[in-house]
Amino acid sequence: MTAFASIADFEAALADLRQPDAAARAAAAARQSELTKPAGSLGRLEEIAIFFAGWQRRERPRIDRGRAAIFAGNHGIVAHGISAFPPSVTAQMVANFQAGGAAINALSSAAGLELTVIALDLDRPTADFTRAPAMTATECLDALNAGAAAVEPDLDLILLGEMGIGNTTAAAALCARAFNGGVTRWVGPGTGIDDLGIARKIAVVERALAVHAYAAHSAFETLRRVGGREIAAMAGAALRARQLGIPVLLDGFISCAALAPLAADNPDIAAHCLAGHCSAEPGHAALLAKLGLSPLLTLDMRLGEGSGAAVAAGVIRAALAAHGEMATFAEAAVSASL
Amino acid sequence: MTAFASIADFEAALADLRQPDAAARAAAAARQSELTKPAGSLGRLEEIAIFFAGWQRRERPRIDRGRAAIFAGNHGIVAHGISAFPPSVTAQMVANFQAGGAAINALSSAAGLELTVIALDLDRPTADFTRAPAMTATECLDALNAGAAAVEPDLDLILLGEMGIGNTTAAAALCARAFNGGVTRWVGPGTGIDDLGIARKIAVVERALAVHAYAAHSAFETLRRVGGREIAAMAGAALRARQLGIPVLLDGFISCAALAPLAADNPDIAAHCLAGHCSAEPGHAALLAKLGLSPLLTLDMRLGEGSGAAVAAGVIRAALAAHGEMATFAEAAVSASL
Repeated sequence: MTAFASIADFEAALADLRQPDAAARAAAAARQSELTKPAGSLGRLEEIAIFFAGWQRRERPRIDRGRAAIFAGNHGIVAHGISAFPPSVTAQMVANFQAGGAAINALSSAAGLELTVIALDLDRPTADFTRAPAMTATECLDALNAGAAAVEPDLDLILLGEMGIGNTTAAAALCARAFNGGVTRWVGPGTGIDDLGIARKIAVVERALAVHAYAAHSAFETLRRVGGREIAAMAGAALRARQLGIPVLLDGFISCAALAPLAADNPDIAAHCLAGHCSAEPGHAALLAKLGLSPLLTLDMRLGEGSGAAVAAGVIRAALAAHGEMATFAEAAVSASL
Repeated sequence: MTAFASIADFEAALADLRQPDAAARAAAAARQSELTKPAGSLGRLEEIAIFFAGWQRRERPRIDRGRAAIFAGNHGIVAHGISAFPPSVTAQMVANFQAGGAAINALSSAAGLELTVIALDLDRPTADFTRAPAMTATECLDALNAGAAAVEPDLDLILLGEMGIGNTTAAAALCARAFNGGVTRWVGPGTGIDDLGIARKIAVVERALAVHAYAAHSAFETLRRVGGREIAAMAGAALRARQLGIPVLLDGFISCAALAPLAADNPDIAAHCLAGHCSAEPGHAALLAKLGLSPLLTLDMRLGEGSGAAVAAGVIRAALAAHGEMATFAEAAVSASL
């Protein structure tokens, strides 16, 4: 069964977003106030526990089953020389994920997460979006559904990561089109291209905005015109997770950019998401602000493939452990104040 | 066997600090450059791996045995009304640690660390340091050695945390005396005292500085005059860990303040330390800068008891997992660049 049978289905889902359970949030907040610590002294760990309580609809949320879902895609725009790596690296890295040798293998294992890698038609790159839409409507809908299919209903948490040579350029185009902002704020060095390469990325994004200027600015049209398969898949996964009430942990610039077109249509789209980290990619901080998210970590990471989110999953585990396992003042016979 | 047989022994250890292994650092840095990721893209995770390689003296450092050592002490200055909690809470919380109900129990367990709680003469608070030195020389030396004894030679990492009602005031006095700075920058709300309480804390610290102004400003004298047993223990543990080449993960304001008097005598003292987080206690950011440390996390935590360090231990585990487990470009047959 596909999650989104049609574009209209996708748009209806985006228009009618599920909300967290207020009673579970209130119960978790009350529990926090009774645990053996000064009120508020665990800072963001307390917020995380209450956030998870609301989405998981239980006073003591937990992560029995957490998944890192990594989507891979190839991009026609690589012909413009906008990456420091050749497009063959996308498939090579997918093979590396499958063999267990990449950063996300080590990091998801350290965080106790299962890892699912979904390679999307790597031998069939998207179209060069400076000339035509990156995807047909069917291709984009297929990618959204491929993402949604990775969100199994019994997951307690899902991380969204990606691999795709060229996709910081697509991410920049998505942000620029979704937020009607300038182009330069969204373009950065990606995996490490030089200043001339950045100038080429800016030119590609500006050309894309001009080419698609008169098309509809809906979430779906922006995703299909200047996105990519792995990016649409992350958008579909995030929306499907919202339908199922599963918290989402976002990774870096590209992972967050997948939500940019959706946020333009419905600013509440990221309410079930946490930002794992703030990447070193310059546009990420501005994008997080647009999505209303405050990153858990700032460790100068800029790898993608879900790596920052996987490190942040450890912070979430810590938050839920403290919330679930600590004694109350009454249980421990500790004085609550002077 | 005691680590520091005399004050002179302690001072000699502080004057002659061990350095990290340059060859192991270089080997780890070379390995980082060969792993399947763009150079530098794991940011601080790469720095952490190289830091651990140097102190553990091996290309691929690991944490087989990590310990959170939590020291507890009571303070004569509580008579001045400088805490939001009564001094009986120190012993109550130690009992809570021992029963497994505190935040540090949940957080150290989540991070795969063993937990050791060392209560230091809780029924014998330090002297009120607005009138006399907090400790006799023997008491201070005993506390230093109690800390050193918690550092078993086969540990791969030690976290230093504390519990002691009143000890943010002692920490502020240590910083003010060690760094000859103003008093107000080091005084904050601690567990949550109001503005009048903060004014009382400032008055206590100013009085202490005046009372002890003409005594020697050595690390030992500052620790014993305006410190506390749990604080001296953390200082002793950090110095002993340096002798043994064991990396130290510091926690919040008080954990770091234990090093302030040592840093005044030897600014290199924190070179084997990482700062787990930046606490919400206002003086902590300034103290980290004085120690030359950049915090791994900023999560608005202000609990103490090693809690922030325990969350940060997860970041360290992630860093060492990526460093130790990832494939190289050659192993994975991935193109290293265009």
